[in-house]
Amino acid sequence: MELSAKQIAHLLNGVVEGDDSVKVNNLAKIQEANSSSISFLSNPKYENYAYTTKAAVLIVNKTFTPKSKINATLVRVDDAYTSFSVLLEEYHKIISFIKEGIEQPCFLSPDSSLGNRCYVGAFAYIGNKCIIGDNVKIYPHVYIGDNVTIGNNTIIYAGVKIYSNTQIGKHCTIQAGAVIGSDGFGFAPQPDGTYKSIPQIGNVVIGNHVDIGSNTVIDCATMGSTIIHDGVKLDNLIQIAHNVEIGKNTVIAAQTGISGSTSIGENCMIAGQVGIVGHISIANNTKIGAQSGVSKSLTKPGMSLSGSPAYELTAHLKSLTVFKKLPQLQKRIEELEEKMLHLQSL
Amino acid sequence: MELSAKQIAHLLNGVVEGDDSVKVNNLAKIQEANSSSISFLSNPKYENYAYTTKAAVLIVNKTFTPKSKINATLVRVDDAYTSFSVLLEEYHKIISFIKEGIEQPCFLSPDSSLGNRCYVGAFAYIGNKCIIGDNVKIYPHVYIGDNVTIGNNTIIYAGVKIYSNTQIGKHCTIQAGAVIGSDGFGFAPQPDGTYKSIPQIGNVVIGNHVDIGSNTVIDCATMGSTIIHDGVKLDNLIQIAHNVEIGKNTVIAAQTGISGSTSIGENCMIAGQVGIVGHISIANNTKIGAQSGVSKSLTKPGMSLSGSPAYELTAHLKSLTVFKKLPQLQKRIEELEEKMLHLQSL
Amino acid sequence: MELSAKQIAHLLNGVVEGDDSVKVNNLAKIQEANSSSISFLSNPKYENYAYTTKAAVLIVNKTFTPKSKINATLVRVDDAYTSFSVLLEEYHKIISFIKEGIEQPCFLSPDSSLGNRCYVGAFAYIGNKCIIGDNVKIYPHVYIGDNVTIGNNTIIYAGVKIYSNTQIGKHCTIQAGAVIGSDGFGFAPQPDGTYKSIPQIGNVVIGNHVDIGSNTVIDCATMGSTIIHDGVKLDNLIQIAHNVEIGKNTVIAAQTGISGSTSIGENCMIAGQVGIVGHISIANNTKIGAQSGVSKSLTKPGMSLSGSPAYELTAHLKSLTVFKKLPQLQKRIEELEEKMLHLQSL
Repeated sequence: MELSAKQIAHLLNGVVEGDDSVKVNNLAKIQEANSSSISFLSNPKYENYAYTTKAAVLIVNKTFTPKSKINATLVRVDDAYTSFSVLLEEYHKIISFIKEGIEQPCFLSPDSSLGNRCYVGAFAYIGNKCIIGDNVKIYPHVYIGDNVTIGNNTIIYAGVKIYSNTQIGKHCTIQAGAVIGSDGFGFAPQPDGTYKSIPQIGNVVIGNHVDIGSNTVIDCATMGSTIIHDGVKLDNLIQIAHNVEIGKNTVIAAQTGISGSTSIGENCMIAGQVGIVGHISIANNTKIGAQSGVSKSLTKPGMSLSGSPAYELTAHLKSLTVFKKLPQLQKRIEELEEKMLHLQSL
Repeated sequence: MELSAKQIAHLLNGVVEGDDSVKVNNLAKIQEANSSSISFLSNPKYENYAYTTKAAVLIVNKTFTPKSKINATLVRVDDAYTSFSVLLEEYHKIISFIKEGIEQPCFLSPDSSLGNRCYVGAFAYIGNKCIIGDNVKIYPHVYIGDNVTIGNNTIIYAGVKIYSNTQIGKHCTIQAGAVIGSDGFGFAPQPDGTYKSIPQIGNVVIGNHVDIGSNTVIDCATMGSTIIHDGVKLDNLIQIAHNVEIGKNTVIAAQTGISGSTSIGENCMIAGQVGIVGHISIANNTKIGAQSGVSKSLTKPGMSLSGSPAYELTAHLKSLTVFKKLPQLQKRIEELEEKMLHLQSL
Repeated sequence: MELSAKQIAHLLNGVVEGDDSVKVNNLAKIQEANSSSISFLSNPKYENYAYTTKAAVLIVNKTFTPKSKINATLVRVDDAYTSFSVLLEEYHKIISFIKEGIEQPCFLSPDSSLGNRCYVGAFAYIGNKCIIGDNVKIYPHVYIGDNVTIGNNTIIYAGVKIYSNTQIGKHCTIQAGAVIGSDGFGFAPQPDGTYKSIPQIGNVVIGNHVDIGSNTVIDCATMGSTIIHDGVKLDNLIQIAHNVEIGKNTVIAAQTGISGSTSIGENCMIAGQVGIVGHISIANNTKIGAQSGVSKSLTKPGMSLSGSPAYELTAHLKSLTVFKKLPQLQKRIEELEEKMLHLQSL
């Protein structure tokens, strides 16, 4: 996708200074730009780059007065930083939704329906009785089982696997290799030491504006649904077990694991590599530090925790400070004991 | 798959009360049922749902006397809970094995053999000299290298990658995105600071009744075999390194990692996010708590451990209790020191 | 691939003793060999296996004098262990690069180019404007987006997903299911409690001789590049966030996670399940113990750390030793307090 300096100035309500026919096809930092880049100068401490940048087009503030010659075509705007952000978002939106049409070979069950402006990449598989909304982008090697529904404007990147009966909302983004709806881990011990699988016949229900990271796994419910509510953001390599429920706008960082039947509140922030045991509830607005292990329900909203097992953050940090001094503490106890022995012998 | 109330009653050796022609196509909890559901009432505390449920068919105990009108067709049995469990298992078995035949396009090497009643999904790939047993279900996007054998009644879900020379037993289930037989992580440091890969030419051997979770990885052996014995259950996102051996009926929860050449005994229970170092042995019936780090061999069977590094569970819990009180302990030591100073000055 | 004893002796500059026409097709440990195996005897403590091994060919030292009859054809060399290692490496190299040609169906954009002696497996997908070097092996179900470059002699195993604009060097190996270039995890909180995705438009740049494990994820940069330098070795299920940079010859074990914009030095060794926070720098030659949590920059090269939060290794080990004795320490403090009380009461 190429845009001319003139088109960009029009988009940003700016004024061109220089060759308005020059074309760009990528956005870059001023110090990393190439001859097809558009970049920006906002912070004065980067001004020197303006005179050496290879960028073809540079967005600058209207008030900017160059101290020497600039090769790039300038686009002058009220606020260069904001204008560049707008451009970045527009650009990202366009490249995210640019793919359209059906590549061959792919596998589309005839009793499934596709909305308008969809993309179905080669080797994608869509099973029976699926309903795919408008402007949904399904990349190559995506597997979609039977009876799956996907809302408008959702993007599913390469190699995502979606088991049968999953429901996915609108405006979701699912990164490559994520697995949604696989069988939960439930086994009943038998008298002979073996385990019998507990049948997993539920599904996964995902709301709107949910983002799911690469190679993250969300298991289906034993019965009923594993539920990911609107606005939840999941990073890469996360494990969400069967019958978990995650409240609205909760954000979870990479490699965290949530065990079966646990319910997480709304607007929680859970850092990376956290483990949360099964069958507990976490209140709204809870913050959990990296590598913590949460073993009990949290009923009070807004707490911050860390540690394994996790408890109140500041208390945990205080214990950690003393932990580092444990060898000295031990020595001080020994000294006290010696002195005590001496005093007692007097 | 649809069943009538009459067919269900026949299957469960029960008696129909109401319209025996009504049909259901899903199983659900009594409070979540829809008009195509069959549900059950066993625990009296759920009785009120019986009068409001949308379920078309309700399994109840023979002794149950409704207090008001029930819309659902009843199927009366000796034990509603057990009957529903039987139904659940049958249903799960049927939907798991319902797929049959070969979807096109797929890639089947002509010198590999497929048993009876197999399913091979579109875009599945089966390399040279593979032997696939009866009733094996291979979902779309599964990759099977060369010289792989898979026993009867094994299900391999979408996108599983199985490297050459892997052997998989009967009645196994492998969830989406799992990788079996990839190269182990072995590198010999060179004098110039680089690393040279140690060739990995072994394979993976998996027994019968083994379950493997989504996006779990099992590396091949350097030479010989990485071995997963009968009845082992592995959750999602687990790492099993080269030359590991896991004993019969051991169960491992999500995101646990086992380093190279370690041997795990039989009937162990290993919780989530555990790390186990390489080249050690874990005795039978060992229980390891979540997020533990096991750094030494365990020769005594039946121990429970936790912590990183892990040691005996109750001792670790006692230390954790004191850890929380470390700031107070430090203060008590300071007070003792002050008092001691005071006493000494007398 | 089959070789005769004669061919092997020629390759290893050795002398055949026995039938030089016997053929082998696999390498195995002496105690695990079958009738198509070649094996070796170097360590005298394995000598007894020489008289019972099923191996067709056995590499032995020139100085070796059997005490009884050996069925295998012998190949006598100066150093049996080294010769076997050479054979192992040659064998591994051959089987790794044996695949050649383009299997159908696959998806190759006509404006992408493939070098000589490449393999493209069935169901592989190569997008627009990609440049694939010589002798590159692309296994089935690999997805390669647009504008991707891959250097000579790189192997990409089944199901790897490579997003657009990724650059991969020469002699790399990427194991199955790895994801390279997915969107980083960046969200700006909005006043209404929701999060807005920060556009991720950068890419991933991978040097030469880099190995990447199964189901590992490397996110693209927000702008600019996530960079993995020459000789880096990444194990399975690792998370590398946006804008991370990893220095030359650094080795990282399984399930470790590195947060956004962190820079790791050269020749570091990072064990498994480590977490490293974002926006910090780790100096060259740093060693980080398993399950550690690194929360601060390390400016001094060559340190060893462990713990969560991580600090200097030996200090941490000392604290851990005392941690185990915390219940006794608490008791000793109590005893001191009692004695103190008693002394004060005198």
